[in-house]
Amino acid sequence: MTSPPDPSVLDIVGREGLIVPPVGTSADAGASHDGSGRVALTLNAAGAPAPRTVRVPPGVTVFDGASWNGIAIDSTCGGHGTCKKCKVQITSGSVPVSRLDARAFTADQLRDGWRLACLAQATADLTVDVPPLVTRPKAATVGVGRQVILRPAVQKRYVELDEPTLADQRTDLERVLDAVDDLSLTADLYALRRLPRVLREADFKVTAVVVDETLIDVEAGDTREREFGIAYDLGTTTVVATLLDLSTGTPVAVRSRLNKQQPFGGDVITRISATMLDPAALGRLTTAAHETLAELAGEVCDEGGVDAGEVYEVALAGNATMTALALGIDPEPLGVAPFVMSCAIPPVVLASDLGVALHPAARATIFPSLGAYVGGDIVAGVLATGMDRDKRMRLFIDVGTNCEIVLGDGDRILSTAAPAGPAFEGGAIRCGMRAADGAIETVKLGDDVELGVIGDIAPAGLCGSGLVDAVAELVRIGLVDASGRYVPEVDAASIAPHLADRLTAVGQERVFVLHRPTPDTPVEETVYLSQRDIRELQFAKAAIATGWSLLVEEFGVAPSEIQQVLLAGSFGSYLSPAAAVRIGLVPKLPVLRIVSAGNVAGEGAKMALLSRREREGAAALLEEVRYVELSDRADFNDKFVDQLAFPG
Amino acid sequence: MTSPPDPSVLDIVGREGLIVPPVGTSADAGASHDGSGRVALTLNAAGAPAPRTVRVPPGVTVFDGASWNGIAIDSTCGGHGTCKKCKVQITSGSVPVSRLDARAFTADQLRDGWRLACLAQATADLTVDVPPLVTRPKAATVGVGRQVILRPAVQKRYVELDEPTLADQRTDLERVLDAVDDLSLTADLYALRRLPRVLREADFKVTAVVVDETLIDVEAGDTREREFGIAYDLGTTTVVATLLDLSTGTPVAVRSRLNKQQPFGGDVITRISATMLDPAALGRLTTAAHETLAELAGEVCDEGGVDAGEVYEVALAGNATMTALALGIDPEPLGVAPFVMSCAIPPVVLASDLGVALHPAARATIFPSLGAYVGGDIVAGVLATGMDRDKRMRLFIDVGTNCEIVLGDGDRILSTAAPAGPAFEGGAIRCGMRAADGAIETVKLGDDVELGVIGDIAPAGLCGSGLVDAVAELVRIGLVDASGRYVPEVDAASIAPHLADRLTAVGQERVFVLHRPTPDTPVEETVYLSQRDIRELQFAKAAIATGWSLLVEEFGVAPSEIQQVLLAGSFGSYLSPAAAVRIGLVPKLPVLRIVSAGNVAGEGAKMALLSRREREGAAALLEEVRYVELSDRADFNDKFVDQLAFPG
Repeated sequence: MTSPPDPSVLDIVGREGLIVPPVGTSADAGASHDGSGRVALTLNAAGAPAPRTVRVPPGVTVFDGASWNGIAIDSTCGGHGTCKKCKVQITSGSVPVSRLDARAFTADQLRDGWRLACLAQATADLTVDVPPLVTRPKAATVGVGRQVILRPAVQKRYVELDEPTLADQRTDLERVLDAVDDLSLTADLYALRRLPRVLREADFKVTAVVVDETLIDVEAGDTREREFGIAYDLGTTTVVATLLDLSTGTPVAVRSRLNKQQPFGGDVITRISATMLDPAALGRLTTAAHETLAELAGEVCDEGGVDAGEVYEVALAGNATMTALALGIDPEPLGVAPFVMSCAIPPVVLASDLGVALHPAARATIFPSLGAYVGGDIVAGVLATGMDRDKRMRLFIDVGTNCEIVLGDGDRILSTAAPAGPAFEGGAIRCGMRAADGAIETVKLGDDVELGVIGDIAPAGLCGSGLVDAVAELVRIGLVDASGRYVPEVDAASIAPHLADRLTAVGQERVFVLHRPTPDTPVEETVYLSQRDIRELQFAKAAIATGWSLLVEEFGVAPSEIQQVLLAGSFGSYLSPAAAVRIGLVPKLPVLRIVSAGNVAGEGAKMALLSRREREGAAALLEEVRYVELSDRADFNDKFVDQLAFPG
Repeated sequence: MTSPPDPSVLDIVGREGLIVPPVGTSADAGASHDGSGRVALTLNAAGAPAPRTVRVPPGVTVFDGASWNGIAIDSTCGGHGTCKKCKVQITSGSVPVSRLDARAFTADQLRDGWRLACLAQATADLTVDVPPLVTRPKAATVGVGRQVILRPAVQKRYVELDEPTLADQRTDLERVLDAVDDLSLTADLYALRRLPRVLREADFKVTAVVVDETLIDVEAGDTREREFGIAYDLGTTTVVATLLDLSTGTPVAVRSRLNKQQPFGGDVITRISATMLDPAALGRLTTAAHETLAELAGEVCDEGGVDAGEVYEVALAGNATMTALALGIDPEPLGVAPFVMSCAIPPVVLASDLGVALHPAARATIFPSLGAYVGGDIVAGVLATGMDRDKRMRLFIDVGTNCEIVLGDGDRILSTAAPAGPAFEGGAIRCGMRAADGAIETVKLGDDVELGVIGDIAPAGLCGSGLVDAVAELVRIGLVDASGRYVPEVDAASIAPHLADRLTAVGQERVFVLHRPTPDTPVEETVYLSQRDIRELQFAKAAIATGWSLLVEEFGVAPSEIQQVLLAGSFGSYLSPAAAVRIGLVPKLPVLRIVSAGNVAGEGAKMALLSRREREGAAALLEEVRYVELSDRADFNDKFVDQLAFPG
């Protein structure tokens, strides 16, 4: 996770892996409008081995286009038109002279194409020379191997101020702001309350604490080395908090725990229902979320040796229901058709509005949601995986009770949600359980049954990935046919002589015994997979497959054109790619194209803390990603039936 | 205070009294740069009898220039570039085409000079045709006869929304914002929490409540007729609250009470000292201010029959110390040289931050301060008296323990503060008292002594205006000489035979008895004016006269050129102009030029509630008014001695 202490520009440019297509691809230098609606931005960065071309939506600034693609341009204000340091030269294509350009450059320079990159909008193809960096921005690797230039919203500036005199009666605030005049700031009431005393007690040598465009505090002396943030992945089941050192981009401590909302129900629908049945439930759910976040904050601060007052910002990624509940917003319309959110972009709030006691003026940045069932966790995941920039055709699937699906090629992105039901979390499965100690997570059928069990103890049940594995293996060896039915006993003996005796029945229902503690254990006390369990899985995977197949159709491509499938979420990351292909959960593609992406929501939240630009990129996704509603599609049921079978 | 229900434009134009010079004055139509640094804006409003020319600082928009001078231009967004209704035609002079102009007009129209007034900056002289109004803005008279076009920051919009469907899954917020798309709004967390339930309970027929650019609430049904604000004049001694109906501009209820900070001391210095002696005092002073404001809010709402939740904004004008204490900001640097404020422009806060429980998301707008001793109350007063627009040379004096002085001719404005001491509030005066029942407020000396007493009861003491009257009369009839000394007893008998026996002594000190309840009352139990009292008044008035005489000098005019003197503040307003001239408190001018201005701070606060433009005008004063610090002037003491004598 850590970047080298002072990576050179070449380092940053050289490690772009996923995001930027190499010169010579479809986004070649000099390429012009290609029907994607994007424009080509060719950047000649001083010291870089070769020019790089990236395609960006028209109107994006040169500064943003470069930053999003890991090319650093000098700036101390973060690209907000105040520091005048992001000077670049436009060598081909034209950009009008902005009001601030006229102040930053001479007439000759303007004629020669010099502009401030943060105000220069690329409305047509441009070639731009980027001068060598004066400052050396640090970078950190987060997300799916993404390199992020470290420019957090939190900034500390140490200043030594002149003391006021009768000839210099500037206010305390002006005195501080004049010393950081590359930023355009307003002050919080909290900072104003502290200013008079702190300035005078510290002999006017103070550190200004800035978040975005706001002065939130002044601290005595030089405290620049102490600046932290907490990235939250607020899951319905599990909540993860990562404490980040914002001065280095390094994670300092990570903790996770169950969401304290669990007693109200395991999934979002039961929690929404709780608020509909009891007017007091909303308040209690909100409090439970706040307590979860607060406990984790205490734990990561303790573990990291960080004072809560040194944490100036939190970022939170959660699905639309979790986000609404954390903010105290009534989630009812999310739970009933037509599934409407209160808002897509959460309001500006403080960490204290989320019940977390950090710095008293600490900010909270909350990921926006694309729809009631494609929430901020998915936006964070799309950001972390670079779905908005990678030129390959990629399919992102976050498998869970509600399954979110995103398909895109970097130019166009579609998303949808599919109601998979609780099977993947062990719900509605006879011997189902959560992925905890004793859960079977892998199954291999050969001469015998090989089980991988969490915690290396005796198997107690079957979690989602074990369920998928078990069914995939039964399909592979032929004990379950393509329609999902156990083959007749007479056939089983010939198909798999060593395993046939495991195919038996509990009551009227046929089952396959996965684990029998002793030969005498009654079959109903073994860990088994029932015919009905297979049907549950079929329904779940058919819902997901219907989702991606409709997106693929809408996009106008063939499933075989998908170059990468990203399996995300706490369940998806543990899924065996081969099994996912075999049961038809993902398109039939070479297994190497199917990748576990890990906790991408949490990675996205970290990126938001480390880079304002990435955060703005997340907001831009709301414009770029089109949500496709499945529940009113006339062809949904047909597709669904088509997808029930196992491709084998 | 009330305007006619639907005044015509002519009404508004015709009643401009103070603000706008008639055509033919120095700001004549076609007049060009006149060395004042202003530009001439000539407005031909449809239906107006004649074109009007106003002078504005370069860069002011046509919309602002017109609004500040009472000429209405169509707008529903209040001049923020979103509604595209403020169309005007530039007939002489040039204004560049803005980005939004290109959307609002055809190429032909642009060529013909059509522009959006809110984006059209007057950088040189312009002549502008203003089309007839489609909407008819209401107007209200506030301040010193000023006509304010009613465009409050608080706006209510009734909307009937389409219900969401699977084909229209816009968020609740988008649905509301799309219906008021002439405004560019963000939403408060409070509004987002209410949206889902209110929309559905009200069948999507709701009233959006907007303050400035923020949606703070949605209310079921049509509540447009109920919108209120409270204007506060937060004085060191007295606090006044006015409840305004923002839909009509009418005051609904007014209440005043003593500031609950009184126990900490009568003036700002003693209160600042309290915070220096006891670390807990700041918190207690802040609480006392909040309780004062909250009690008044309760009283005016009760009196006006208004629910607290129907009050969406408060405006507050107070001196720099009162403002700091109300916000919980440490006032210590205000009390010691070099007299530095924490900030000039208060932060954006909620009414609840001032301890007032109105609508939960109600905003507070707090007047900015020009300096530690020329605070928000004076900025409000300058706004209310139109000092920034009136072309006459005017002197504004707010008489009190600290006396604020402003001198300007509408183009250039200077301000200063003079420490007058407590004499005008009855402090340090032997028989001094506040202006309460029993206080002598007027004194006339003829054959006998005629006293005006507050409450028409027996005189108990002398308040500030009575003190000034008494001294002025004694100077007039000659019992006090120009140096401020009582004449010898031998001379008194010949100067004023009927009054000479009142000139006696208490102990060693000579006194003039104003009221002796019975002939037997011992002289020390009468209401009298002592020699030392006269000295106190001399010092107080000399401080003030030094202040304005230095400003007059700095301005480069003669005192006789002052066309109007405005006496403001709770004391100044009750002062007899003739007496003020006689003792030299104000320049020696015809009495008709000396005007009581009343509670101008409170009037300014009302204007801020009724008009966003006026509020922005107040903020602009910070740039326009130059503060002149007296305490480091080498010539202060000389001037002060010069001013001690009574001109007579």
